[in-house]
Parts: sequence; structure tokens; C-alpha cells
Amino acid sequence: MKEWLDAYDDRDWQSATEGTVRYALLGLGWWTIDLALPAIEESDLGEVTTFVSSSTEKAERLAAENGVDHGISYDEFHDGEAADAYDAIYIGTPNAYHLEYAETAAELDKAILCEKPMESTVERAREMVEICEDADAPLMIAYRMQTDPAVRRARELIQDGFLGDPVSVYGNNSQPLLEMNPNKEQWRLDPDLSGYGTSVMDLGIYSINTTRFLLDREPTAVQSQMSSHADGFGDVPDERSGALLALEDGVKMVTTDSQNAHEDTQLKLTGTEGQIELRPAFHGKATLHLSRGDLSATIEHDAFDAQREMREEFDYFADRILTDADISPDGRHGLQDMRIIRAIHEAAESGDVVEL
Amino acid sequence: MKEWLDAYDDRDWQSATEGTVRYALLGLGWWTIDLALPAIEESDLGEVTTFVSSSTEKAERLAAENGVDHGISYDEFHDGEAADAYDAIYIGTPNAYHLEYAETAAELDKAILCEKPMESTVERAREMVEICEDADAPLMIAYRMQTDPAVRRARELIQDGFLGDPVSVYGNNSQPLLEMNPNKEQWRLDPDLSGYGTSVMDLGIYSINTTRFLLDREPTAVQSQMSSHADGFGDVPDERSGALLALEDGVKMVTTDSQNAHEDTQLKLTGTEGQIELRPAFHGKATLHLSRGDLSATIEHDAFDAQREMREEFDYFADRILTDADISPDGRHGLQDMRIIRAIHEAAESGDVVEL
Repeated sequence: MKEWLDAYDDRDWQSATEGTVRYALLGLGWWTIDLALPAIEESDLGEVTTFVSSSTEKAERLAAENGVDHGISYDEFHDGEAADAYDAIYIGTPNAYHLEYAETAAELDKAILCEKPMESTVERAREMVEICEDADAPLMIAYRMQTDPAVRRARELIQDGFLGDPVSVYGNNSQPLLEMNPNKEQWRLDPDLSGYGTSVMDLGIYSINTTRFLLDREPTAVQSQMSSHADGFGDVPDERSGALLALEDGVKMVTTDSQNAHEDTQLKLTGTEGQIELRPAFHGKATLHLSRGDLSATIEHDAFDAQREMREEFDYFADRILTDADISPDGRHGLQDMRIIRAIHEAAESGDVVEL
Repeated sequence: MKEWLDAYDDRDWQSATEGTVRYALLGLGWWTIDLALPAIEESDLGEVTTFVSSSTEKAERLAAENGVDHGISYDEFHDGEAADAYDAIYIGTPNAYHLEYAETAAELDKAILCEKPMESTVERAREMVEICEDADAPLMIAYRMQTDPAVRRARELIQDGFLGDPVSVYGNNSQPLLEMNPNKEQWRLDPDLSGYGTSVMDLGIYSINTTRFLLDREPTAVQSQMSSHADGFGDVPDERSGALLALEDGVKMVTTDSQNAHEDTQLKLTGTEGQIELRPAFHGKATLHLSRGDLSATIEHDAFDAQREMREEFDYFADRILTDADISPDGRHGLQDMRIIRAIHEAAESGDVVEL
């Protein structure tokens, strides 16, 4: 137990100890400025050299405020401006813009770290994968849970038989979106920018992807229900959603997600012999609850929060780029989430079981 | 808060302060002997006068061992033996026998407290309701969660607007049945005795019924998945199950249940403004977790366990009988659970949404 705790946040994936990946950051919202930027600044293998935003003026102003060398517009980015100053881009824009920036980055021979969900539709996500593969451009989808030590230790425990046979999974991700950002015109509520909807695309993806990573099992069929009720949610089908997913080996997974509910994140995996739970799960401070037989243990990591999760993610990405190693989660891994999310939306519309 | 805690386990339902209901107990398994019998012995308004079992010898022996006056066989029970010694029966037998005992009790003009699920099929449950209504025999279904103070206080909080609008519900009830009772021929794994199956009939009913009670909302449609894998579960469809229930007002409910998994019980109700959770939920020691805005509270009742829950349930039943008051949960309330469970089994077989 002493050794296990001491090695809890060891980077089992790290092979590069020196080198620097220089980033251009696209989409300068609070997530990028307040979390991604400091995460990279504190990281071992990264630095930010370039800001990209809607106008040159805004990009230059924010670059100056944050001590970043270059501030350019999206048009200038597409024209290759300042391309010598960065090796990789981080895409933190609304979903429906991811493809065009990845395409330009691939043309410019840059690596790409793209926020999840990777695009607004399966078709556009597939196009991104193919463009990056054709250009041999490294593409990672930013599933920060996969480099959170709580998740990595949970995965090892599962591989070690902690659960016995996995039986069921429950995931919930809910938040009061309009309390966090009262703008009813925000892109997460606009299907032209967000894609299939809001609660599964933006929140449910955490339960789905983290479960795929933890169990190494894929959903084979889904059923679902969705509805929207409150002001501001008229254009998206899923202010609230519930889904039932059949995973490989008869594992039953259920999820609930809402953009208009009390904040709560929980991911619970129950097996024939034990249970592993993350709660809170997805918004930083991931806490690991283990139980097996009559014993239970809770592991809290005081220093891990969303920013530290981002640092791990950026350093993992940089490590892959600097050592020219395979990336996981790559574009095809992210594309599978898009297919699952589309199936959940189709299932809610039809009432049918949708096979994957 | 002081007043609220001091009144936490007050019996808001009690009107009788004296009187005694004399019980015959049917089905002398560990639940009846180890929990129901001491619960009644400690209760204010009940006493056990009669044991009923498969043979006179067994009934008489157990009656003598436990200081109970009469021990009779099921045949003798049907013949009206010792009927002057009891006012009510408690049915703790396998599900498929409930109807015949209720029928005889109704003929003998006795009140009936019947374990849940109330019978093995909807048709037999409906027959029980009709027989009891025709005979004017009081019938209560033994949903002990409904008289647990944690559940009653949660219900009041919900009626008081604690959750805001209810958004989603998650219920899990899992246990390792064959570790608790290694007999693979036990009645819970025999559909002739248990009814539609094992995990939803025996475990899922807790999430379903407690949610109906807490939210005062009924399921309108269900989807489901079931499978059986392990030795001993070959005759039932649902060693594991997962279900997605549409409740009134767009509430999304998801459940998982298993008779072959690590023990865990949780019931979580999430609303637009708060969350109420029972964990552990169903196997005694129900603990109430409240959260609203940035605040959360956990209320543990050190003295409540399964036996104390049974005592409340028996005293509630006795109170209703002694004051000739309406009973809730009555037979029609239990019949609705049977319809929901049948729909969940139909949904798992067909893959379709089954409307209620």
C-alpha cells in the first residue's frame, strides 16, 4: 500500500525528459485562458507562443496580457502566419469549427490536440481523421480523464481483476449551464455549433469515454430518452437525457446527463467481486472509491484539479510528439465516441435499440 | 435544524396508542424468524401468536423455540385452525404462494400484510387485490422503505421543493445472492416461484417503488436489457438488468440490478436545484445525503437497521388496522409495481419501448 500510494501519480507513460512543444492556442475562452494556458506554462514539455482568435486585435491584446509572443486571427492562421513559432495547435473552439483548424494544421505539418467531442457530426469527425492520417499529422483528442492518475490506477486495478467480471456501470454528469453562463445564445445550446445536442455531446461523453478506457469494452447497442423543457434549450433535444448501453460481455451501462440540473459527477463500475467509483468524477479532484468484500478505501489526491489534469494531458501529448510515439486517445478513438453519441440521439428519436 | 433532527424519526402516521394486532407469520425463513419476529416483539402494537409452516411438526418446533403459542401447517391454516388466535397474517413465503394465503385470510376475515413483490405475475396480483376488496379484507404490501424516516423526510423535502424540478433518478440494488445462500435451487432463481425473474422482482422493486413514493410520479414507458451468465441463473432472464424508465414530467430514471454482484444500494434523485440521495439505501441503515447549491448534509440514524424498519412497518400496519384507516401502500399500489416489472421484462425481450 505504501508503494502503491507513493507511485499513485507517477507518469507511467512518460519517456521524454527534455524538449519543448510550442503551442498555438485556438479559441480563447475561459477554459483556454484560465486552465489550458497555465497548465502548459507549468508543464515540463510545453510552452505557448501563439494565440489565435476571431480578430487580430483581440488575439494581440490577449497575447500581450498573458505574455504570449504572437496574436493572430483565424484568417491569418489559415494563411500560415506565425507558423514557424509553433509545433502544435490546441483546439478549444466550438465543436463545429474543429475540422477546419485541424485541416490547416495538417497542411502546415503541425500536431493537433483537439478538444472533445472532436467535431459536431460523425461525418466531419471522420473527415478530420482521414485528413490527419493522409497528412501524417499527429492527432490527439483531449480526453483529460485518461491521464488523470485516479483513472489510470482504476484501470490497472480492473485489469488486475479487482471487479471480478464487470456487471454494470452508472455514469452521471449534470450541471446548471445557464447559472455558469447565463447567455442563452451560447454555442453549447446551438446545434449548428455543438452538433447533435448538448447534454450527451458535452457531458455524457465523459461517462462514455472514461468507461471505454477503464473497461476496454465497447458499446454494442444503445437505447435512450431525451427531452428539453426550460427556456434556452428549445434548439437542442437533450436538456436532459438518459441512456442504456449494452457493452461487450453483457455489461449493462446506464447514464443520465443534464445541462440544467444540480452539479454532480459520478462514475461507478460494479463487478461480481468489487466496485470502483469516481466521485466526484469529471470536474477535477477525481476521487477514487474502492470496495471489495467487506473492505472499502477512498483515495483523494489533494493536488489534482482540472488544471493539473490539463497539465498531465499536455505533457502526455508533448511526450508522444517529442518521441514520435503512438497517441492514444487518437482520432479514431474519438470518432468512435461520435458514433456512440449519434446512436444515442437516433435511439432517443426512434425509441428503438440502435446497434453500433 | 434542531427541531428537524429531533423530529426526524417521529411517526407522523401514528394515531393508535393502544391495542394489539395478533399475527400469524407465514413462511418461516431467516427473514421472518430473525427480523420480522423480533420486530413485532419490540413493536408497540403487535404480537405474534401463530407460526405457519410446511408441516405441523416444523411449525410447532419453531413456535416452541421462539415462545409462540401456536404452530400449524399450511393445510391447517387453510382449514381455519387457530384462527381465533390471530387478527392478521404476514406473508413471507415465495412470491407464487402469496395469493392462496391472502385468499384464505380474506375468507377468515383477517387483515393481510404481504411481502413484495406481491405475487409472481400481474394476473395473480390483480386476483389478490380483487379478492381482498370483495371480502373487505385490509391488504398492505410490505414496502418497509415507505415507513423508514430517511425516506419519509426525503419525501417531505421533495414536496417542499428541495430538488426544484426533478430531472433524473438513479437506482441500484445489487448483491451476491449465491454467497448469501449457496443453494442454486433456491426459489428466487426458480421462475415458477419468483415470477418474471430475480433481479428486478427481488431487488429492482426497491428503486422503482421508493421513487414512486418519493416523487409521486409514475413510470409511463420503459426500456430494458437483461442477461444471465453464471451457474445457477440459467432459469431466470435477469442475473443482471438495466432499465430506462420515463417518469411523468420528463423525469429520466435509470436502474441497474444484479443478484450476482458486489453488494451496493443507492438511490439518487437529481433536480434543477438540488439532489437527494439514499446510500446505503435499501438494506437497513438508510443514510440521507442532501445537497443544494454549495451545501451538503449527511444524516445518519444510528439506531435504524432492517429490523427497526420492520418494526415501523408492522406498527404502521397495526395502526391502520386498529383505527380502521386507509392503508398506503395498499394492494393496488403493489399491483402497479407488478405491471412495471412485467413491462421491464417485456421490454428486455422485445427491445421495444413498452408503454404503461
